[in-house]
Amino acid sequence: MNIRPLGDRVVIKKLEAQEKTKSGIVLPTQAKEQPQMAEVVAVGPGGLVEGKEVKMEVEVGNKVIFAKYAGTEVKYDGIEYTILKQNDILAIVE
Amino acid sequence: MNIRPLGDRVVIKKLEAQEKTKSGIVLPTQAKEQPQMAEVVAVGPGGLVEGKEVKMEVEVGNKVIFAKYAGTEVKYDGIEYTILKQNDILAIVE
Amino acid sequence: MNIRPLGDRVVIKKLEAQEKTKSGIVLPTQAKEQPQMAEVVAVGPGGLVEGKEVKMEVEVGNKVIFAKYAGTEVKYDGIEYTILKQNDILAIVE
Amino acid sequence: MNIRPLGDRVVIKKLEAQEKTKSGIVLPTQAKEQPQMAEVVAVGPGGLVEGKEVKMEVEVGNKVIFAKYAGTEVKYDGIEYTILKQNDILAIVE
Amino acid sequence: MNIRPLGDRVVIKKLEAQEKTKSGIVLPTQAKEQPQMAEVVAVGPGGLVEGKEVKMEVEVGNKVIFAKYAGTEVKYDGIEYTILKQNDILAIVE
Amino acid sequence: MNIRPLGDRVVIKKLEAQEKTKSGIVLPTQAKEQPQMAEVVAVGPGGLVEGKEVKMEVEVGNKVIFAKYAGTEVKYDGIEYTILKQNDILAIVE
Amino acid sequence: MNIRPLGDRVVIKKLEAQEKTKSGIVLPTQAKEQPQMAEVVAVGPGGLVEGKEVKMEVEVGNKVIFAKYAGTEVKYDGIEYTILKQNDILAIVE
Repeated sequence: MNIRPLGDRVVIKKLEAQEKTKSGIVLPTQAKEQPQMAEVVAVGPGGLVEGKEVKMEVEVGNKVIFAKYAGTEVKYDGIEYTILKQNDILAIVE
Repeated sequence: MNIRPLGDRVVIKKLEAQEKTKSGIVLPTQAKEQPQMAEVVAVGPGGLVEGKEVKMEVEVGNKVIFAKYAGTEVKYDGIEYTILKQNDILAIVE
Repeated sequence: MNIRPLGDRVVIKKLEAQEKTKSGIVLPTQAKEQPQMAEVVAVGPGGLVEGKEVKMEVEVGNKVIFAKYAGTEVKYDGIEYTILKQNDILAIVE
Repeated sequence: MNIRPLGDRVVIKKLEAQEKTKSGIVLPTQAKEQPQMAEVVAVGPGGLVEGKEVKMEVEVGNKVIFAKYAGTEVKYDGIEYTILKQNDILAIVE
Repeated sequence: MNIRPLGDRVVIKKLEAQEKTKSGIVLPTQAKEQPQMAEVVAVGPGGLVEGKEVKMEVEVGNKVIFAKYAGTEVKYDGIEYTILKQNDILAIVE
Repeated sequence: MNIRPLGDRVVIKKLEAQEKTKSGIVLPTQAKEQPQMAEVVAVGPGGLVEGKEVKMEVEVGNKVIFAKYAGTEVKYDGIEYTILKQNDILAIVE
Repeated sequence: MNIRPLGDRVVIKKLEAQEKTKSGIVLPTQAKEQPQMAEVVAVGPGGLVEGKEVKMEVEVGNKVIFAKYAGTEVKYDGIEYTILKQNDILAIVE
């Protein structure tokens, strides 16, 4: 993976519905701001972001829940990624 | 429970109306932003959140009152949880 | 009283109109954001709230004036309470 | 006077038009946010207000100019007071 | 002059068009937020204003350019003054 | 030049289109918030501005690019100037 | 390149679609706020920007992904550049 996010940004790859079923999580499809599961593929360095100290809590490989419409989508080698701020990640699923 | 909330987020499970009656609290249903009772099932680490120091005040097992529309709902093994910021929790009921 | 407010929140119980008359305060009913009198029944610990240090100035038993539409109403054992931030309390009446 | 304002709030009593004339100040009635003169009757303790240090600059007895629609009006023993933040007071007239 | 502005406020007296011509400045009348020249007649103490340290840079007697619709107008002994925050003063004309 | 800007403000004089051509820069006229070139004619002292430390980076004589609608225009001895905050200056052209 | 951006601003030059294909990134054209690839051609000094310490993370020559509508476009010697804040750059592509 050669996308290096800046500041407190994180690159994630959405997990398919079947993977979600295996891990036991079913996310309601009718929610207005539908949360989704994804895998973290790259993590920014954190540190001072707009004058605020941010400590990165997620690591590459973490399965995370994030707000669906957060961040910006980019496609790389045919795979779609999302670049979002760590604060848009709600939780790590272990 | 294997959802680990980030920062100052908390995972709660709503309590049913009958449980609310047992604990003596009746919440008016006509309120615009209706508060609800829930049980805390997971608590984020707190610390620096967007540059502000946050100390977690709730613990797993606490019964809490929170604003109904706060946070994001996720379903896990058939049970619905809400992930919200601790600041959206109004009070602990003891 | 077993509702323990978080952070800089305060639980108050509204005083009836006749009590207001006894204490000499008449609050105009035509005001857009009508203030009301209440008695403080529980006080949060204060401290760091969203990264800001808050010192609690009210105590249980204080009669206070607050902005009517501030906070969230909850019912407990048939009595209605309001949970609001201390900053929505305008003054203590002695 | 037994209304004790919280934080950086101040209780003022509006001065009548004739008093304004005596002190030499005439305030234009057509202004959109019409300023008014008032006398300070109670002053909050100041200190940390929403995480910001506030030093009280007005004292009981000061004649002040304030923005007319600032604050909340309360009636006490038939007299109307306004509770407002010190920052809504523009100047002291000496 | 016995209006003592609070905090970072300044009392100014607008200069007439002819005075503006003498000092060589002509201000366009068609500008949406038309700047104007004025003379400073009173200066607040500065210091901590809403938790921010403000150092007063203007002095009584300074000719200043300010945004026309900034501040609040008050009339005193038949003369119209404007009370505004120092930050609404753009520049000193020397 | 005898306009002394306050705080982090800068006085600039717009450069004509022909000067822009000589320096090699052509600015698109159809842009919604069209940038323009100007020469810096006066620079405020910087320092504490609304509680934030600002260090002035531009100097008198600098050619700068700024957002066209930023700041306030004033006319002096028949020449039009713009007073704007240094933060509205995008870059220095050397 | 003789455009020197101020503060935390960065000057970038958009990369053509064919270059994007070579580097393996295809950006969806239907996205509402379409991200784009660009090359960094000049980097501001960072430091205190509106009172917040900003450390520059990008360098001249970096290929970056940025939000398409961020920043201001300027043309120089027939080439179009964009001046934007580093925070509008999402990631470096290596």
